[in-house]
Amino acid sequence: MNPDITKERKNGTFDVEKLTYIVDGTPEKTRRRREIESLVLSDPDFKEEDPNFLSRSERYDQAVRKSAQMILKLREYGIADPEEIYCYKNIFKGNHQEALGLHFAMFLPTLYNQCDPQQSRKWLPLAESFQVMGTYAQTEMGHGTHLRGLETTATYDPATQEFVLNSPTISSIKWWPGGLGKTSNHAIVLAQLHTQGKGRGLHAFIVPIRDMSTHVPLPGIVVGDIGPKFGFSEVDNGFLKLENVRIPRENMLMKYAKVEPDGTYVKPPSAKLTYGTMVFIRSMIVGLSAKTLAKSCTIAIRYSVVRHQSEIRAGEPEPQILDFQTQQYKLFPLLAMAYAFTFVGQYMNATYQRISGDISQGDFSELPELHALSAGLKAFTTWATNSAIEVCRMSCGGHGYSRSSALPDIYVDFTPTCTYEGENTVMMLQTARYLLKSYRQAKDGQQLSGIVSYLSESDHRRVQPQPVAARPTVVDINDLSSLVEVYKLRAAILVELAAKSIQQELQNRKCQEDAWNNSSIDLVRASDAHCHYVVVKLFTDKLGEIGDTAIHSVLSTLALLYALNGIKLNSGDFLQAGLLSGPQVLQISGRIKELLSQLRPNAVVLVDAFDFSDKLLNSVLGRYDGNVYENLFEWARRSPLNATEVHESFHKYLKPLRSQL
Amino acid sequence: MNPDITKERKNGTFDVEKLTYIVDGTPEKTRRRREIESLVLSDPDFKEEDPNFLSRSERYDQAVRKSAQMILKLREYGIADPEEIYCYKNIFKGNHQEALGLHFAMFLPTLYNQCDPQQSRKWLPLAESFQVMGTYAQTEMGHGTHLRGLETTATYDPATQEFVLNSPTISSIKWWPGGLGKTSNHAIVLAQLHTQGKGRGLHAFIVPIRDMSTHVPLPGIVVGDIGPKFGFSEVDNGFLKLENVRIPRENMLMKYAKVEPDGTYVKPPSAKLTYGTMVFIRSMIVGLSAKTLAKSCTIAIRYSVVRHQSEIRAGEPEPQILDFQTQQYKLFPLLAMAYAFTFVGQYMNATYQRISGDISQGDFSELPELHALSAGLKAFTTWATNSAIEVCRMSCGGHGYSRSSALPDIYVDFTPTCTYEGENTVMMLQTARYLLKSYRQAKDGQQLSGIVSYLSESDHRRVQPQPVAARPTVVDINDLSSLVEVYKLRAAILVELAAKSIQQELQNRKCQEDAWNNSSIDLVRASDAHCHYVVVKLFTDKLGEIGDTAIHSVLSTLALLYALNGIKLNSGDFLQAGLLSGPQVLQISGRIKELLSQLRPNAVVLVDAFDFSDKLLNSVLGRYDGNVYENLFEWARRSPLNATEVHESFHKYLKPLRSQL
Repeated sequence: MNPDITKERKNGTFDVEKLTYIVDGTPEKTRRRREIESLVLSDPDFKEEDPNFLSRSERYDQAVRKSAQMILKLREYGIADPEEIYCYKNIFKGNHQEALGLHFAMFLPTLYNQCDPQQSRKWLPLAESFQVMGTYAQTEMGHGTHLRGLETTATYDPATQEFVLNSPTISSIKWWPGGLGKTSNHAIVLAQLHTQGKGRGLHAFIVPIRDMSTHVPLPGIVVGDIGPKFGFSEVDNGFLKLENVRIPRENMLMKYAKVEPDGTYVKPPSAKLTYGTMVFIRSMIVGLSAKTLAKSCTIAIRYSVVRHQSEIRAGEPEPQILDFQTQQYKLFPLLAMAYAFTFVGQYMNATYQRISGDISQGDFSELPELHALSAGLKAFTTWATNSAIEVCRMSCGGHGYSRSSALPDIYVDFTPTCTYEGENTVMMLQTARYLLKSYRQAKDGQQLSGIVSYLSESDHRRVQPQPVAARPTVVDINDLSSLVEVYKLRAAILVELAAKSIQQELQNRKCQEDAWNNSSIDLVRASDAHCHYVVVKLFTDKLGEIGDTAIHSVLSTLALLYALNGIKLNSGDFLQAGLLSGPQVLQISGRIKELLSQLRPNAVVLVDAFDFSDKLLNSVLGRYDGNVYENLFEWARRSPLNATEVHESFHKYLKPLRSQL
Repeated sequence: MNPDITKERKNGTFDVEKLTYIVDGTPEKTRRRREIESLVLSDPDFKEEDPNFLSRSERYDQAVRKSAQMILKLREYGIADPEEIYCYKNIFKGNHQEALGLHFAMFLPTLYNQCDPQQSRKWLPLAESFQVMGTYAQTEMGHGTHLRGLETTATYDPATQEFVLNSPTISSIKWWPGGLGKTSNHAIVLAQLHTQGKGRGLHAFIVPIRDMSTHVPLPGIVVGDIGPKFGFSEVDNGFLKLENVRIPRENMLMKYAKVEPDGTYVKPPSAKLTYGTMVFIRSMIVGLSAKTLAKSCTIAIRYSVVRHQSEIRAGEPEPQILDFQTQQYKLFPLLAMAYAFTFVGQYMNATYQRISGDISQGDFSELPELHALSAGLKAFTTWATNSAIEVCRMSCGGHGYSRSSALPDIYVDFTPTCTYEGENTVMMLQTARYLLKSYRQAKDGQQLSGIVSYLSESDHRRVQPQPVAARPTVVDINDLSSLVEVYKLRAAILVELAAKSIQQELQNRKCQEDAWNNSSIDLVRASDAHCHYVVVKLFTDKLGEIGDTAIHSVLSTLALLYALNGIKLNSGDFLQAGLLSGPQVLQISGRIKELLSQLRPNAVVLVDAFDFSDKLLNSVLGRYDGNVYENLFEWARRSPLNATEVHESFHKYLKPLRSQL
């Protein structure tokens, strides 16, 4: 054990184990997670070569091998509860992706939700026994988040009772689905349905793409890998071009909408039914942001106490990097954010569970709010985490660039969350639409409920900034509930500002749509402020549940740092609206410095409480024992370029060069 | 040619060619650059496989082959002027790195600058004929920017007249030098000199590491590749462990400091002599930031006019992405920044040329200011560019994640600039040290000269914010010189704030060093504000040189956008100091929206003026002709995973799985 890191652990002021229970939810959850972890991590069948040392084809090969093994293990251990499968899969895949990810995450759930009884009887046994391996083909080369723009067609032919599927243009080629390129033999294809000469909008079809026995692509199917990407090297994200591909009528998923044998179209009973999955996935991404940020902070903070560099006092030994104020200011606000997002993730998960109960009873009343919240928080947390990973990486100096740090892999595998499952700017605008609607309802005198109810209260506020002196300054910068209040007021003011921008555009004779577009900068900003308020509020609420005094104290410090630093970084908003005065903002800067020093002794134990095992982190810099340098040297020596002492290029190019000059 | 992009080019309001001359410096420079470009790009010997389709060993192999060919070509074409070699090399390497980069960039220049005449006679012919291929081994596993911390030792043994080199600890192993792992047979090693029982500080030694004929590592040398990284896959960044390696006394570079045969140490005449190279490289990095940002903007903006997505008005065709205000707000401020950094890069280059003339005359008077400026601007421009590349990438939707977009490669190859040649936070603090020193000199009544002279004027200002109403508001938000003025005042105020923080810490009985460390957040912020001021000022100054009315007009719009958006993003500073009022900040938000619309018609021609050829961009999304989708499909089909229709993993793992369930 590195003596620096041992010393850090002695400095902690609270019981790490107890904080781990809070992070996991309950002691029982911690116990079960560890149990599953040790199942996976001690399993010799999962031993693998560092993917960074492999070619892409080898990485894909290794990922398929591991996924196949995982399926066998889940059976062997009888793990069937979805939450436990999710936990098992997460541990098993580590910082990388899983080859059969979409079969589990999208193909099977879509079959479960959208098959009629006859279809279930046919497809579920095939899919559950992996005769059928599937993916979910929605996005096209030229079309993403905006579903109405998708071009793939499925035209019903009553003569043969078949659908004829086509990719009518280059831009309509299905593009990006994971597992589509090489792994899957079936795909659920989203296509514009045409029957009886009429377009009926987007529907889902089960399309066989490869022969189930030989795995060779079927006639009319042009399928393949879309090529190397930023991350996801082990996944065969694929393309699919459909050329007059015929499938039986029964391959349209018919639980809700139907096409009768004669081509008659039967509408689905409600448009909201497919809505829930998206909300679920976005809510899960909030939790993923928290986990990823927690990992990155663990690596950066542990390495920052082991790494000595530069000098504070001349002549003295080089200090631990974490003793530099600038390093603390890079990392501690992110640590605070990791805790904030953890609790927001717990809230989203609980809310989803609660509301999905209502939904299964046919009560959709809370869905719009959860939809708006999950869209905005998905964008808010993924954007913040995305930048934060890079701050963590760069805070590790040169070694942050080494693949051995794990941070490059964590980044490239996380960054797509900003784009998939709804592009972040579009997500922010969806939340803004809900906020504006609520704002107008409040203006019209309706009583709002739920998390937006504060928009009712904002009526009396004026957006025009007032001289600070003219406004009574009631904010206590050391009181979290007071800070929640100013975040709320800021959000209310920015929503109102966006509404006024739209109004003004309309007065300038713009149509509704142009007015919206010309106000979209303000709308995104309003959504962002709303999400920020929600995060500060949920973190503060969480503190109320925590009985342990020592843990309550350190989490309160983190919450305060999160709230105050958010104000510092957006101080223009608070000053402009007169919510805070100039001297208060100065005071906040000073207070932040105090909080950094206060947190310094607990930094390592706070990341220890996230309880990532070394195998899971897979980072030389983030090792629990702090023995970084010897292990970095070990790792480097295994680099494939070191397999031979002299690389062949010397004989091929460099030696001959001499005689040619 | 894609009709959308053709239409865009018709909308331009100025002569693109003339703006290209301004970007290059002169029409003559544009002509010569294009000449060299066509030499490289039309050369069949440089045809290469997309590195993204290769394994790391193959990438390294291809890079070595290309570098060897490049050397032959430079001879063949008689290109010898350093600026032209630099231009040739940049074109030739594209978005990737060059295998022999450090031989040219560090090994040869160090020999030129630090060999005594006898050493020059021996080593230069060897190095220039590539018998000796070298690298520059400074950083160690545990030591980076802080040079005094380096641990490698070179102990003089007068008995044999040799130096004995050692890596006394794991953390002292040389780590990171490019070309060290496999390519080089010599290294210039920076080591702590010990002679006659005394430490003499860091000196440079020429150390043979591989046999010049067989390329096998020499006795006592443990050398190899440090393993895969984030980017730089074609470079063999290496490690070097020295175990009692003996080199002749004559292998210490002795132009300045010397060790006599008996071990007597002779000091160098001035410590500043090795200072210039660092300043030069940091100045060059500013220009590299500009080029990289310009490339990224070119890709993102061209693709944003070709890509149609979502809807503004219901029922109408999907609009060009660039018609969304949020997309404009993502990209146009970055476009403005690309032009700003281009002009700052030109200024740094010109200043360096001018001052290095003085230096060679023994006049070092302007070096400290240039040193401070290059450190701060290196950090300021690389941080901003680093984030900006990712904004550009994510503005391209899913396809930004594809390696075919080139943006992932641009990012991973650029991001190390934030760390190498001086870690950015350390750079900001170096600039701050100069600013604080100047501030104190001004306080002491000295007249300051150069770019920091504004610190003399700030005396009369008060840091304490005043009620906005009490301060006459003289800022004209449409007048650039007025905006330069407020940026200047902001910088002055933040420098003063940092100085006061130090003072206060000292009053709290902290020692000087702790006071500095406890104020370092403020110091970094002051440096940042100083650099921001310099950039706005240099952009504004540049406008004065531009005669062409149409170009002057569009560049003025960009400069205004750059300045106003910088205020918007940092509005807290301006409001807190009472430099702007709340209503003015609101007004600025509105004005920014107008500028975005104003720039919209010129967006494509403004990136065209950067004049990157398609081969150089190497981006499917950034193609000049806008034919993105057909070429994306072409590219994907060449992915190595598509070499076979059925990947072997199906037979190995997936098919067997069925029978096991």
